[in-house]
Amino acid sequence: MIDFPAGFKAPFVRPSGRVADAMREVTLTPGQARHAEGSCLIRFGVTEVLCTASVESKVPPFLRNTGQGWVTAEYGMLPRATHTRGDREAARGKQSGRTQEIQRLIGRSLRAVTDLKAMGEMSITVDCDVLTADGGTRCASITGAWVALHLAFQHCMKMNVLKTNPLRDQVAAISCGIWNGTPVLDLDYAEDSKAETDGNFIMTGSGGIVEVQATAEGAPFSENELLALLGLARAGTAKLFELQKVAIRG
Amino acid sequence: MIDFPAGFKAPFVRPSGRVADAMREVTLTPGQARHAEGSCLIRFGVTEVLCTASVESKVPPFLRNTGQGWVTAEYGMLPRATHTRGDREAARGKQSGRTQEIQRLIGRSLRAVTDLKAMGEMSITVDCDVLTADGGTRCASITGAWVALHLAFQHCMKMNVLKTNPLRDQVAAISCGIWNGTPVLDLDYAEDSKAETDGNFIMTGSGGIVEVQATAEGAPFSENELLALLGLARAGTAKLFELQKVAIRG
Amino acid sequence: MIDFPAGFKAPFVRPSGRVADAMREVTLTPGQARHAEGSCLIRFGVTEVLCTASVESKVPPFLRNTGQGWVTAEYGMLPRATHTRGDREAARGKQSGRTQEIQRLIGRSLRAVTDLKAMGEMSITVDCDVLTADGGTRCASITGAWVALHLAFQHCMKMNVLKTNPLRDQVAAISCGIWNGTPVLDLDYAEDSKAETDGNFIMTGSGGIVEVQATAEGAPFSENELLALLGLARAGTAKLFELQKVAIRG
Amino acid sequence: MIDFPAGFKAPFVRPSGRVADAMREVTLTPGQARHAEGSCLIRFGVTEVLCTASVESKVPPFLRNTGQGWVTAEYGMLPRATHTRGDREAARGKQSGRTQEIQRLIGRSLRAVTDLKAMGEMSITVDCDVLTADGGTRCASITGAWVALHLAFQHCMKMNVLKTNPLRDQVAAISCGIWNGTPVLDLDYAEDSKAETDGNFIMTGSGGIVEVQATAEGAPFSENELLALLGLARAGTAKLFELQKVAIRG
Amino acid sequence: MIDFPAGFKAPFVRPSGRVADAMREVTLTPGQARHAEGSCLIRFGVTEVLCTASVESKVPPFLRNTGQGWVTAEYGMLPRATHTRGDREAARGKQSGRTQEIQRLIGRSLRAVTDLKAMGEMSITVDCDVLTADGGTRCASITGAWVALHLAFQHCMKMNVLKTNPLRDQVAAISCGIWNGTPVLDLDYAEDSKAETDGNFIMTGSGGIVEVQATAEGAPFSENELLALLGLARAGTAKLFELQKVAIRG
Amino acid sequence: MIDFPAGFKAPFVRPSGRVADAMREVTLTPGQARHAEGSCLIRFGVTEVLCTASVESKVPPFLRNTGQGWVTAEYGMLPRATHTRGDREAARGKQSGRTQEIQRLIGRSLRAVTDLKAMGEMSITVDCDVLTADGGTRCASITGAWVALHLAFQHCMKMNVLKTNPLRDQVAAISCGIWNGTPVLDLDYAEDSKAETDGNFIMTGSGGIVEVQATAEGAPFSENELLALLGLARAGTAKLFELQKVAIRG
Repeated sequence: MIDFPAGFKAPFVRPSGRVADAMREVTLTPGQARHAEGSCLIRFGVTEVLCTASVESKVPPFLRNTGQGWVTAEYGMLPRATHTRGDREAARGKQSGRTQEIQRLIGRSLRAVTDLKAMGEMSITVDCDVLTADGGTRCASITGAWVALHLAFQHCMKMNVLKTNPLRDQVAAISCGIWNGTPVLDLDYAEDSKAETDGNFIMTGSGGIVEVQATAEGAPFSENELLALLGLARAGTAKLFELQKVAIRG
Repeated sequence: MIDFPAGFKAPFVRPSGRVADAMREVTLTPGQARHAEGSCLIRFGVTEVLCTASVESKVPPFLRNTGQGWVTAEYGMLPRATHTRGDREAARGKQSGRTQEIQRLIGRSLRAVTDLKAMGEMSITVDCDVLTADGGTRCASITGAWVALHLAFQHCMKMNVLKTNPLRDQVAAISCGIWNGTPVLDLDYAEDSKAETDGNFIMTGSGGIVEVQATAEGAPFSENELLALLGLARAGTAKLFELQKVAIRG
Repeated sequence: MIDFPAGFKAPFVRPSGRVADAMREVTLTPGQARHAEGSCLIRFGVTEVLCTASVESKVPPFLRNTGQGWVTAEYGMLPRATHTRGDREAARGKQSGRTQEIQRLIGRSLRAVTDLKAMGEMSITVDCDVLTADGGTRCASITGAWVALHLAFQHCMKMNVLKTNPLRDQVAAISCGIWNGTPVLDLDYAEDSKAETDGNFIMTGSGGIVEVQATAEGAPFSENELLALLGLARAGTAKLFELQKVAIRG
Repeated sequence: MIDFPAGFKAPFVRPSGRVADAMREVTLTPGQARHAEGSCLIRFGVTEVLCTASVESKVPPFLRNTGQGWVTAEYGMLPRATHTRGDREAARGKQSGRTQEIQRLIGRSLRAVTDLKAMGEMSITVDCDVLTADGGTRCASITGAWVALHLAFQHCMKMNVLKTNPLRDQVAAISCGIWNGTPVLDLDYAEDSKAETDGNFIMTGSGGIVEVQATAEGAPFSENELLALLGLARAGTAKLFELQKVAIRG
Repeated sequence: MIDFPAGFKAPFVRPSGRVADAMREVTLTPGQARHAEGSCLIRFGVTEVLCTASVESKVPPFLRNTGQGWVTAEYGMLPRATHTRGDREAARGKQSGRTQEIQRLIGRSLRAVTDLKAMGEMSITVDCDVLTADGGTRCASITGAWVALHLAFQHCMKMNVLKTNPLRDQVAAISCGIWNGTPVLDLDYAEDSKAETDGNFIMTGSGGIVEVQATAEGAPFSENELLALLGLARAGTAKLFELQKVAIRG
Repeated sequence: MIDFPAGFKAPFVRPSGRVADAMREVTLTPGQARHAEGSCLIRFGVTEVLCTASVESKVPPFLRNTGQGWVTAEYGMLPRATHTRGDREAARGKQSGRTQEIQRLIGRSLRAVTDLKAMGEMSITVDCDVLTADGGTRCASITGAWVALHLAFQHCMKMNVLKTNPLRDQVAAISCGIWNGTPVLDLDYAEDSKAETDGNFIMTGSGGIVEVQATAEGAPFSENELLALLGLARAGTAKLFELQKVAIRG
């Protein structure tokens, strides 16, 4: 168990029955999508996201003739991934603000650990499609997307398109929150909807922080609380990095 | 093996290695989507479609106060379900003509065997999302959607919302085509893209035809060829009806 | 009168007052659109469709540098072509699924009888705009579009852009249905909305079938019924081919 | 011939072969659209517009419970109404600025002579669809739309929905322009595209002006020139009012 | 005070407290937008429009390789520029017909006094964004846009991109209307919404008319009334031309 | 000057010439928008955002009959607020992902300090329109929006619609980043585009944190760096709270 900063103590039970610093069972299944150059089905408990990486031999206009590559992401959710059916975004004719926010975050996280120059002028699009949602889909997406991206780069190396893997580090993400006054790790949907503060922490294998997004849903939070969440996230991502390493060894 | 009409003979091998009247291995896994009232993951060889049925207690405006229910369908494909990544329809801002054509067909097929009056004023939307595509996705969708719909109606009966199941019959679909001059059953993608004629046959458990769509991709076809395709489809759907029965027994 | 398969007999009167195998009066007026390279105003009774063929000296991206041409179609309906005014699709901001389904069908039918390689790299778009609707607009569109396309190709020959006419055969379409238990030819709107089964048959001048679309609106239909409809369609299109020949002679 | 203001003299020939104050042949054919409550096919030489008036028993939200009616217009052009094919607005997904400008003008012109209170809470939409374009389509639309609207109101009187015709006056429109230094009436496309100034004048049967839109395409114009155009328009609309009277008598 | 044509007399007070031929206080502040090549904040009383001119070194496709430049305009209104908040057009997903009509008018007016050939192949887009609206926004936009455009051309001369200023003349616009039977100059929102006739007059520094748009909101208007409005507009724009001259001198 | 955590030292000059913990000059001008119930023009150096609060007496559907109010925000940027002109979102037909992300953030921040129940069933929309952009527009928007919202609530109290002001606390935001290895406060555009890490900190008047968004643009950042940024933000927002208090006293 991690050390809580002074003033916090772990609750005995959360709605999920887990203790404060317990993650749900996480599994990463590489190669799940038959046609993609790299893919990974990731599960955080019930949450289930299929990540596929697609390689293209061209770059967006703003990168043409720069010798540099691009990594981007798109995010979607099956209409009935959720408890009640949501509108199909394709039928509605536009992606919601939430969808765009998440896919921008995934792309940014992946680029933070990719040497775009080492890619040469090629693009990889990682699609993260949520098959079942139970909280934490954006963190699961980032964590699984890294595996799909790694496998796609491996594929490029096998095809002699790349000599080295342009990934400089691992990246993984986990949500933490203040639930009933206590910092807890890896919120599921029921916890997330009642948390006072909700944060997503995106970290690298070497211990750096790529992005912190922490939001007070109810009362504002304090610096100490932020640090407690960060501590939980560090412990959680350490475990995810281990799972990623296993997944890419295949 | 079915009897071919005069003038046709089965080829020894198709690109898939199957004989003319052999279907791919078909599996139906009910209850795959945790949140949906009814669901079925259907596989035709590599092709894989997740069908979920969502119940809502209201009807579209044109049916209000008629005492009648509604069944409709939506169809989608994950961007990397295919060999090369396709645009995400939500990002492009509209559903393609092909998508709309297919989802209208699925909805029509399901309504053909549903007693809408017996439903009362409720709606069921069946989402058919293609996870992996290798030909025959619309036929797989219809066949799996019927199972998802049946399970959703069972759920309504268990909840005491319905007294009887409004499904009057089974419905299933299979593709057939003329490949290299010979009628063959259940085309995969490689066969479909080279077939001279391509047809989708939607049939009921009691032997009726709900819809026939046969299209000459190259040379026009003859009445005899149409009958040969219909014969294959009858044999193929007979097998699908058996699998559906097993799936709903759960 | 055609021979009905065993078990069917012609009714004495249909809502339209026609016997089972009687078509409405059909007229084809070539050259109706002053600016188009080819055009034809086609009437099936009250139904009235203006078909115009527009030649362009370039092809869609996927055909560039293939030496091959392209034929495509667009379909529209004036807002008050129908009994009650429909929304203007341009104002609504998108074409309905029905519109897209029909225009894809028209394009496919025309391409089935066109030697695209013989065209060289040019495109022809055939616009089919319904001025008055009374059932059978998609069949009228296909039949009239062929005349407009033929005239546009003749125009290209006169301009020395083409040496031979790339049309290999005629194509025409007619609807048939089961009305009150009996197969009938060429449904008008009143009949169509009450038919148990409704089919569109697209055939070539040399007797081949290009596309069959038959749909049970109520009870499923049988193989015998399908054959009866096909027989009616064969008789109906034979007459349309004669009218097309007169129209292109001008 | 009208009297030109000092300083202008009529040219002997325009591109169209007409003298300065000669209109093209104008015909108005009432009742052309079978399903509409009122309709009129109007031709100005080659220009051809089908105007249909559709009655609905409800009003837009901003007029609910005011006891007042509404008249509005929509404008469209068949893709090949013009010399080279234009994009179909429904396919492009939006109406152009020009289309919206014209349909707003038609609606405003019709409302200027309609007693909206006398209509009660009903709406009439007049669709003006250009079948062939050769200049002057917005003026032809207004002139024909008035006839369609009048016939729709007559229909409402025949159906006992209205006791009196809410039209207080006639409205008609004609274009005029400065061509090669001389004011000319009723520009066709060839003249319009070379005119230095181009104006649309919308007038009432009793001699009032409803709208003037005059635009310098090349050099600015003078007050005298504006008056000369207005004089031509007065003469032209006088003739249109006669034709409208004949058309509504049927 | 201008001379009114026979039969009109100036009212003593308008809702605004101004006499018939009095304009609101008009101020033009050049250089208000820090980043733009040319800009002008224009106020007509409370109405306030920020005009910015942006230079780009390319032209729209239809002008490529013609050696000619292009001037265009876009118009927008902040959601709360008006008394009650209007929808944000970006959120609604399209520009209204009114917006498009106005921005087309601004662009046309600017091009009427620009020597496009003298520009060479470059484009200038003038954005007119209404910060506060109280009637007359389109006229203020045109008047301020001319200053922004002039300053942008001056900037190009300073940068040695142009040798001479391609503006051949000034252009300014003012609204006039018939209010309570009397022609009045420069309507504010309260007057505009009650005026019987409403006109926009766009004139050049050398006295020519670029565009007249006069619309009867209630009863039709007469030729004499049109002339009275034109007289007021001439007096009003004379004053605007003086202000423009001061503004570009800086 | 704030105390930097061990290991950091302030650089002597930043691109802006400011020391590490110096903010740009900030001014808040209340009541700038004549028609809005509350408004504030806020400047952070050159960055300039007009914030207007619009009161409506109804709530979105999901809040009807809950007795609770709603506060939301929309964000926009004039096309030439930036160094090079950006597309007008209204013309492009959709808001960018960035725009949606920012307006969701503003709305969330305002709701964090508003007692929605105390509002009763009314809505306030705060529009934040960037007139000039030079970095920090989202933070300026939040800080100015709070003033506009406060003034709108005061207006409601003056109108006797509310008895007390539903704002429970102040909220303000400031950006901080790691520039050239050193934590700096309030990045302008030039600094922001070269910063290694970029963060937005949204805080309440009573010292709580509402939202932290920190992103590594280059190398990942450490926990110590995050704390340094938080320290700077605390100092910066303290100053903003003072300015807000002055602005609402008006």
